[in-house]
Amino acid sequence: MKIKEIKGGVCAPLGFKANGIHCGIRKNKIKKDFALIVSDVRASAAGVYTSNLVKGAPVLVTKKNLSDGYARAIICNSGNANTCNADGVEVAENMCELVTSVGGIDAKDVIVASTGVIGQKLDITPMREGIASLWEGLGDNSDGAAEAIMTTDTVKKSVAVEFAVGGKKCRIGAIAKGVGMVCPNMATNLIFLTSDADITPAMLQKALSEDVKSSFNMISVDGDQSTNDTCCIMANGLAGNKPIDCAGKDFNAFKKALNYCTVKLSKMIAKDGEGATKLIECNVMGAKSAKNAKIIARTVIKSSLVKAAMFGSDANWGRVLCAIGYAGVDVDVDKIDVSFASRAGEVEVCKGGHGVDFSEELAKTVLSEDEICINVQLNSGSAKATAWGCDLTYDYVKINGDYRT
Amino acid sequence: MKIKEIKGGVCAPLGFKANGIHCGIRKNKIKKDFALIVSDVRASAAGVYTSNLVKGAPVLVTKKNLSDGYARAIICNSGNANTCNADGVEVAENMCELVTSVGGIDAKDVIVASTGVIGQKLDITPMREGIASLWEGLGDNSDGAAEAIMTTDTVKKSVAVEFAVGGKKCRIGAIAKGVGMVCPNMATNLIFLTSDADITPAMLQKALSEDVKSSFNMISVDGDQSTNDTCCIMANGLAGNKPIDCAGKDFNAFKKALNYCTVKLSKMIAKDGEGATKLIECNVMGAKSAKNAKIIARTVIKSSLVKAAMFGSDANWGRVLCAIGYAGVDVDVDKIDVSFASRAGEVEVCKGGHGVDFSEELAKTVLSEDEICINVQLNSGSAKATAWGCDLTYDYVKINGDYRT
Repeated sequence: MKIKEIKGGVCAPLGFKANGIHCGIRKNKIKKDFALIVSDVRASAAGVYTSNLVKGAPVLVTKKNLSDGYARAIICNSGNANTCNADGVEVAENMCELVTSVGGIDAKDVIVASTGVIGQKLDITPMREGIASLWEGLGDNSDGAAEAIMTTDTVKKSVAVEFAVGGKKCRIGAIAKGVGMVCPNMATNLIFLTSDADITPAMLQKALSEDVKSSFNMISVDGDQSTNDTCCIMANGLAGNKPIDCAGKDFNAFKKALNYCTVKLSKMIAKDGEGATKLIECNVMGAKSAKNAKIIARTVIKSSLVKAAMFGSDANWGRVLCAIGYAGVDVDVDKIDVSFASRAGEVEVCKGGHGVDFSEELAKTVLSEDEICINVQLNSGSAKATAWGCDLTYDYVKINGDYRT
Repeated sequence: MKIKEIKGGVCAPLGFKANGIHCGIRKNKIKKDFALIVSDVRASAAGVYTSNLVKGAPVLVTKKNLSDGYARAIICNSGNANTCNADGVEVAENMCELVTSVGGIDAKDVIVASTGVIGQKLDITPMREGIASLWEGLGDNSDGAAEAIMTTDTVKKSVAVEFAVGGKKCRIGAIAKGVGMVCPNMATNLIFLTSDADITPAMLQKALSEDVKSSFNMISVDGDQSTNDTCCIMANGLAGNKPIDCAGKDFNAFKKALNYCTVKLSKMIAKDGEGATKLIECNVMGAKSAKNAKIIARTVIKSSLVKAAMFGSDANWGRVLCAIGYAGVDVDVDKIDVSFASRAGEVEVCKGGHGVDFSEELAKTVLSEDEICINVQLNSGSAKATAWGCDLTYDYVKINGDYRT
């Protein structure tokens, strides 16, 4: 059985309910700001988090709550990151206790997350007043939760798949938010995954930790690494597969399905980067090592000048070479080939480190699409890597010039 | 005798002439594109260069020509970087020979530089046709040379000082270009310095190499490190001071005057960053080590989110803390104080890692100035560092969305 996309987001796996409401953290009443995802039964759980030394209080509380490997619920607000606040941990713990108060779920089994502006106190009052309605509305409402965790996201980010583990049909679902403060070398912004596969906490953590290296750690919107990045997964075992408790075929099937979801979300996050009009994918091939390939791919998609050129559909490949040159890894510049590709075609622009004649007209056509590949062949080995980013636009500046007010 | 600013740029020191003309590399006839600086006598010379692995051909030729520690002339074109071209080194060497052809100066005593678009062949014909007029026009025309090396610079960058070495009056003059592809960890874009001080090539190189660590290596416009960064100095000894051939008082006097010029140019480059409306200075104090202080200062001024907030005069200090947190150095977040300052006043926004109440009105007034300081007190030691950058604006995107065409 192949991996097959299905509907339902985080509610696609058996035994998960979700909801999202406006509780009043945001002034704009149309924008949902409070989300809840609940599993019918206690689930194996795992997380990866920002490596920023400045960590949001919810990150600290979630890490502590997941230390035993189990969880039953995810509670999240948008509009305020609850970061750099003296009472941050207390507020985050109180958010977990809200779930206990309405659903009887142990506060230690709650994953908590916040996203929004840093350094403003998070008042729990609107959430205390809204929790009953949030709980009562729980159902097949992954989209509600996905909407409630959005900040400047322009599209909901959601995916779900079904796949087989040892002949049993299992599912993974996920929602995510991205937009700004998105940079490689971290877990990513907020990603909540659910699964009905039966898998031990240790193997679930292993799967997630390995996965993010080639998915969420390979995206960049603006090079700024958020303080609140959290990627958590709960797997409740209701699919009834033989428990995955070691590496092997079943574990690989799970990982493959997980990677399908995370790569899809990575591309959605990159494409919906703040102000972005285009998804930029950099494929680095022929590298001496996977590490080198990753560093180069990430450096290219992070370059402000490459990003601005992509916005202008300008085949300024010199900036790609320039970025490769300062990536900090050993490369033989005279072996590098570069091409730009999209659904409109492919145009080779650099061969052996030097420019080649190319049709500016074709290049413009290729780069005017909304999904662009920058293909870099290093001709120095067999390792490869892919990173995802977006173009740099007027709107990025506009959105971030006055975010707080 | 104190360091005193004087007029004259690179022609302020005794025995230097300069000129700049439009020779035809650029289509726009109003924009000069060809510069020459000549010393009456052979001068000690030193250089620091980009650490980008992709190096412009002129960088390679200049490094070779300066290997004996002497030079007499600097030739430079704008409009084309002569980088990633198969015939690049040949063209750069031919540029040096043009100086021989008109002035009888050994081509090995010529510093050559190019700036502009990467990966397009540089045709020497316009320069061959223009060299006689460039040579004949040599005189007290530092501004002409400064204009000719500009790309998207909006202001000429020039400085000159006089100072004393062992009682003798000496001078240093300089011109620079900056704008885009400007990032810490490099020499900087193009900086040409002249001096009439008598100093050995070895001590001149030592002075320059030490200096850039706290000047040009501490600026960032966009985090993209250019392929053509070159900072060169010629010192012809015509001031008649006792030759500086070792460390000590005279060397320190020279270094102090040099640093005055380089810091002034650094700030001019940062303030005239592509699209910039504001100079951003980040002062990090109380660090455990100078290295930590430098890394943090550079990380803050490189943050796209901090830069966009400064553009919008938004006191979003959480982004400053966020950048400190991902700088990759060990800091105690709970000890960090942050304030914003300008000629309009100072406003403390963060104390001990947490937000403090502050007047949004005062903050807006402070941040609406065109020179802003972000002061970071780490309260963890006594080391400090300063870095300079600029805000991120619509115009940066506009300028770089379609640079080639």
